[in-house]
Amino acid sequence: MAVPIIARDFTPEDWAFIFEGLPKVLRFELWQTLSEDKKSPILAAMRDDSREQLLSMLSSEHLEDVARSSSAEHLVEILDVLPNKIAKGLIKKLNSEESGLVEEALNYDDSQVGRYINHDLYTVHKSANVGDLLEELKDELLPPYTDSILVVDEANHYLGQVDINALFSNKPELSLVQIAEFSDRVISADLDLYDAAEAVKSSGRSMLPVIAKDGRLVGRFTIKDAIDVFQEYYEAQVSHMGRVSDEDLFAPVITSARRRAVWLGINLITAFAASIVIGVFDEVVAQVVALAVLMPIVASMGGITGSQTLTLTIRGLATGQLAKSNLRALGNKEVLVAFFNGILWAAVVSVITSFWFDNPWLSAIIGVSLILNMLVAAFAGIAIPVLLDKIGIDPALAGSVILTTVTDVVGFFVFLGSASLLLI
Amino acid sequence: MAVPIIARDFTPEDWAFIFEGLPKVLRFELWQTLSEDKKSPILAAMRDDSREQLLSMLSSEHLEDVARSSSAEHLVEILDVLPNKIAKGLIKKLNSEESGLVEEALNYDDSQVGRYINHDLYTVHKSANVGDLLEELKDELLPPYTDSILVVDEANHYLGQVDINALFSNKPELSLVQIAEFSDRVISADLDLYDAAEAVKSSGRSMLPVIAKDGRLVGRFTIKDAIDVFQEYYEAQVSHMGRVSDEDLFAPVITSARRRAVWLGINLITAFAASIVIGVFDEVVAQVVALAVLMPIVASMGGITGSQTLTLTIRGLATGQLAKSNLRALGNKEVLVAFFNGILWAAVVSVITSFWFDNPWLSAIIGVSLILNMLVAAFAGIAIPVLLDKIGIDPALAGSVILTTVTDVVGFFVFLGSASLLLI
Repeated sequence: MAVPIIARDFTPEDWAFIFEGLPKVLRFELWQTLSEDKKSPILAAMRDDSREQLLSMLSSEHLEDVARSSSAEHLVEILDVLPNKIAKGLIKKLNSEESGLVEEALNYDDSQVGRYINHDLYTVHKSANVGDLLEELKDELLPPYTDSILVVDEANHYLGQVDINALFSNKPELSLVQIAEFSDRVISADLDLYDAAEAVKSSGRSMLPVIAKDGRLVGRFTIKDAIDVFQEYYEAQVSHMGRVSDEDLFAPVITSARRRAVWLGINLITAFAASIVIGVFDEVVAQVVALAVLMPIVASMGGITGSQTLTLTIRGLATGQLAKSNLRALGNKEVLVAFFNGILWAAVVSVITSFWFDNPWLSAIIGVSLILNMLVAAFAGIAIPVLLDKIGIDPALAGSVILTTVTDVVGFFVFLGSASLLLI
Repeated sequence: MAVPIIARDFTPEDWAFIFEGLPKVLRFELWQTLSEDKKSPILAAMRDDSREQLLSMLSSEHLEDVARSSSAEHLVEILDVLPNKIAKGLIKKLNSEESGLVEEALNYDDSQVGRYINHDLYTVHKSANVGDLLEELKDELLPPYTDSILVVDEANHYLGQVDINALFSNKPELSLVQIAEFSDRVISADLDLYDAAEAVKSSGRSMLPVIAKDGRLVGRFTIKDAIDVFQEYYEAQVSHMGRVSDEDLFAPVITSARRRAVWLGINLITAFAASIVIGVFDEVVAQVVALAVLMPIVASMGGITGSQTLTLTIRGLATGQLAKSNLRALGNKEVLVAFFNGILWAAVVSVITSFWFDNPWLSAIIGVSLILNMLVAAFAGIAIPVLLDKIGIDPALAGSVILTTVTDVVGFFVFLGSASLLLI
């Protein structure tokens, strides 16, 4: 779908895209054909995983060449995936201006705007007037996504922004400081990346200036940066729902196997929890084997019901639309939805079961178990993510494993438990 | 997370956000407090679901007022969720310019750029020169996300775009047509929305002009439009993975129950398929009840393995990084990853099982079954989405249901089948 529609030069993103679609060996071959100046932007545009893999194939001399020809913001992305020792060695080899920028960026952690700051911005000194700026712009290009000019003092303190529109409508002798707005449209360098992306998106601007604690202008955050943050966020979410890290298509087998083993191990605990419940009721299962045949239905319908509520709840928590005030309303609604669907599918399953096994008690038991498990699932689908969120664990990461455990355990327990009371 | 960080006036997106977090009754009360001019932008910013719900509460007179004060592009979003008859009635009540725009938009289907076109753009006639334009801009504001001026003829045919930068660097007497580029940076009105979003994103521009088949400029597609398209796309994907439509947090219970019933019904078919397989082997299960206790483990570990591969494959297909050329390489890698994890977890499960049931044959059977099911799962995790994609079904929608069916059926079949051969 993402095949570039418009004929044009390859951007670093295009190259990153091409690399990520290639198996490991071909990546290295293609890499060697690239000119030096293209390399670091391409690396920065890659997924962490692919970048790490490619860098691991380079000699330390080659790495130094890449680092030296790299801009500070690209270099931070490269350093992020290198072992600490190598990263420190690389910083030492930079010229002082670049290493200053890089070290400033590394003061912020990898969820903060300050770390991945965009230094490609247009500033003007406070003493300039509109005419000076217009004169300067005759020879200089504004970088992409520039819809305002940032005004600073000698120490690079941020003083305000002048909308491009204002350059057309104001007299040349007017001082820029006079028409600049020190608006609330700024981002603090320690702001969370996702919040910064939301702020740019809702500002209606193509960029927002990023300011350090001491008032210095450290860079800008553009709407293109916002897109990248959103895409990374959503891709990670989709990956976690599929029980996989946000990994490279052609990650090394061992890396990939190791990471996925973690998810599989967690799932095994869930599966054994279900097995233990079945084991408690092994006598009734041995006597009425139809229970073994039907029990996956109860667990699985509960699992889907819970997953539906969980998905909505996680989205509501992530966007902030779900809060204490409307949690109860959502709970009522979700349990009611589960109740209606419980009645419907319990009826369907009971009818099919009665034709299959001709045992009215069994049909009744599976129907009631289905309804109960689906109600519990809807409740758990809200309670689990809300609790996880409260104790600071990302519900998107852990929510559905815990939910499956609950719906399996409750499903098997209610179904086999009531069978052991009523059938033997 | 998305709570606006920066103090500012509420945008239509903010209002939409607030509405979507409110239960139904409160939505209507809040709605009545809004001034008329705010209403249609807020409606357009809402999810389809929430918009439909709110509109269903309005009287037809109120609806007409909203439509009349609405811009064409907002109105299209409103008409999209109204019953056909009401929509047609509304169009008739518009003035001719607006209804012309709306009817043009409705010529495109709801996956095409032409339908949701942004008419808020700055054009200039081909006869103008740089000085004329600069004069005009003294009194007129460029709309947000404008980094180029679009040049058209009398019939509104697109002739090229002039970069804002060019206004500063060129002499006033220069004709705009002379400096305009009729670049390849344009979007065709029948282009798919997602492709258009990708095109804007990779263009490095804040906007691209949208051109009809006959060469007329019909509007523009901004980078903010691209963000909206991406977010909708990813939210839908996350929802489908959670087996739910992209629904409103407070959708009416009946609507919600009906939609989710579809997913539950499909899941029931899967669950019954698994039950049938178990039913085939009911004799061995009755004799060795440990099989009933352990069988969910085989199915579930296969399910997770398959889901991991499926998630990567779907992403690869969606981005276009996965194609015929590298499918085989991915297949080899994924099967190898599954093999390593199969060996690991088979060993773990076999050891636990031998302590639990003290039956070496049973331990051997579950170990081998686990490995086999995980290998099949990895293979199916690639084959299923690729085949679905080939026959034009969205793998994100149907992939994981089919996959679960495969891993359940194969898991139960291999485990119980080999047990019936070896244990009795």
